[in-house]
Amino acid sequence: MNEADEIAVSLTLGALLEVSGWPKPGNVHRTRDHDDTRFEHFLASAVAAYPVLRELAETAATRDRVPLGRYLYRAVKASRSAHTGGNTNLGILILDTLLAAALARASLHRREVRREARRLARATTEEDAYYLYRAIALAGAGGLKRVRRGDAPDVSDPRRVLEEGITMYDALKSSADRDAVAEDWVNGLKRTLRVGLRVMDLMAEYGDVNEAVVRAFLEELARRPDTLIWRKHGLRTALEVSRRAREVLESAGDDPVTQRRELRLLDEELHARGINPGSTADILAAGLGYACRLGMRP
Amino acid sequence: MNEADEIAVSLTLGALLEVSGWPKPGNVHRTRDHDDTRFEHFLASAVAAYPVLRELAETAATRDRVPLGRYLYRAVKASRSAHTGGNTNLGILILDTLLAAALARASLHRREVRREARRLARATTEEDAYYLYRAIALAGAGGLKRVRRGDAPDVSDPRRVLEEGITMYDALKSSADRDAVAEDWVNGLKRTLRVGLRVMDLMAEYGDVNEAVVRAFLEELARRPDTLIWRKHGLRTALEVSRRAREVLESAGDDPVTQRRELRLLDEELHARGINPGSTADILAAGLGYACRLGMRP
Repeated sequence: MNEADEIAVSLTLGALLEVSGWPKPGNVHRTRDHDDTRFEHFLASAVAAYPVLRELAETAATRDRVPLGRYLYRAVKASRSAHTGGNTNLGILILDTLLAAALARASLHRREVRREARRLARATTEEDAYYLYRAIALAGAGGLKRVRRGDAPDVSDPRRVLEEGITMYDALKSSADRDAVAEDWVNGLKRTLRVGLRVMDLMAEYGDVNEAVVRAFLEELARRPDTLIWRKHGLRTALEVSRRAREVLESAGDDPVTQRRELRLLDEELHARGINPGSTADILAAGLGYACRLGMRP
Repeated sequence: MNEADEIAVSLTLGALLEVSGWPKPGNVHRTRDHDDTRFEHFLASAVAAYPVLRELAETAATRDRVPLGRYLYRAVKASRSAHTGGNTNLGILILDTLLAAALARASLHRREVRREARRLARATTEEDAYYLYRAIALAGAGGLKRVRRGDAPDVSDPRRVLEEGITMYDALKSSADRDAVAEDWVNGLKRTLRVGLRVMDLMAEYGDVNEAVVRAFLEELARRPDTLIWRKHGLRTALEVSRRAREVLESAGDDPVTQRRELRLLDEELHARGINPGSTADILAAGLGYACRLGMRP
């Protein structure tokens, strides 16, 4: 298998393992669908993005300029066409397109991947921003629109970014304070890469991929308020969910958390209240892709 | 997306939708692992085979001779390397390699796909058989060994097929009477293609991909005794399981079967007794791949 395929296989599997992490409280997972998106929509989305991620990795390995925005748009388009549900993987693909390009240009070492990711992010252009906004509109997510504070352009007219000279880096930087995906993209995937390494530690410790995935998710949720919850339900709710995640981890101690009653109750409650820690899940999906590229095997 | 990628996306998604069909009684599925194989192993296997299926489709579209056995071996090898579990997808890949090649050469019409599949199957050589046996040994399946009746060569020494002039077609034909996968391969995927069309009908009828997948599975199981059960537990047990599948379908009538208590009880019982209708699942996975190629979207 060539390197571009290895990258695409890893990132695709990362997305599949993330959505299969069970029960990740509040997310779509094996036994939980949302109104407009169901488990199978995530499966179809992940596979549909494969050929775009592979081609992106090939391009990044051989060309100087990498049209990240255009690849993001193509990946979102392929994913949208593959199922009938709502937005499944815009956040994952924002991270995974940058990760695929960085992995194709660097060694696998976290520091080198990060340096390359930062370099690629800073080199993005107005054209990349144009396609970013088209991807957001196509995904039907609107997350970036909701967090903009006057300085990011209106999603409804992507052409404005061309006129105003706003790059993809500028656009995502202006959302970084209230969108964990944008923040991590701007930061050269710092959090994504850390989470990937953490999952590998947990896998070594527990020898069970589902346990490692769910535990890594709870740890991230406990550490940082989820920005999707923040945007939809306010900071107070986001902080409450983080505290609840911490309590589940503490109630389990060193024992498997996935067997715990508290975890299942939290999952039920978040679904009942319509609360979805989706930003944390996006970071985890990309982090799992990095872990798979590093050789993690379920 | 080019056609080879479209074929690989479809067959990969077919395998993912099959293992996610829930609860397909007796199989590994979302909430059931087996001792040596778990749900995540099937996810990893399916994705790992993608690049091999794509390359096979490209080769089949452009070259006269298609080394089916070698591609099968490569796909099994990639799948085995992607996880730490037991055999997950040997049967699926025997069907999917032939299906990928046939789809790359024919229109999507069932009759044409079947004609091309028969032609490709009959054109296989001793070299294909050599790699078939190496793939079986690598998968750790041994199914073909168990059903051989003196006329198929010993799996433990794949080189014998080269000396004895046995082709892949000969080898699979000699197992066809007690292995549904081998039978369908020799038959130009007749059953696989029919199941794929049936799933599309069920999808149109119920509008729910899981319902369509589980119902198609039960219908197939009701129609024909599962040959993996037959080989492991005897024909009597295989016929009993088929009768039970029929009873579940009849108890549900036109209502969704996946909500039914009878289905869950059958799943629990088969798992407790170690009975896995694995051949039927293999046919369904490949059939779902055909349905996805025909445009079925979850």
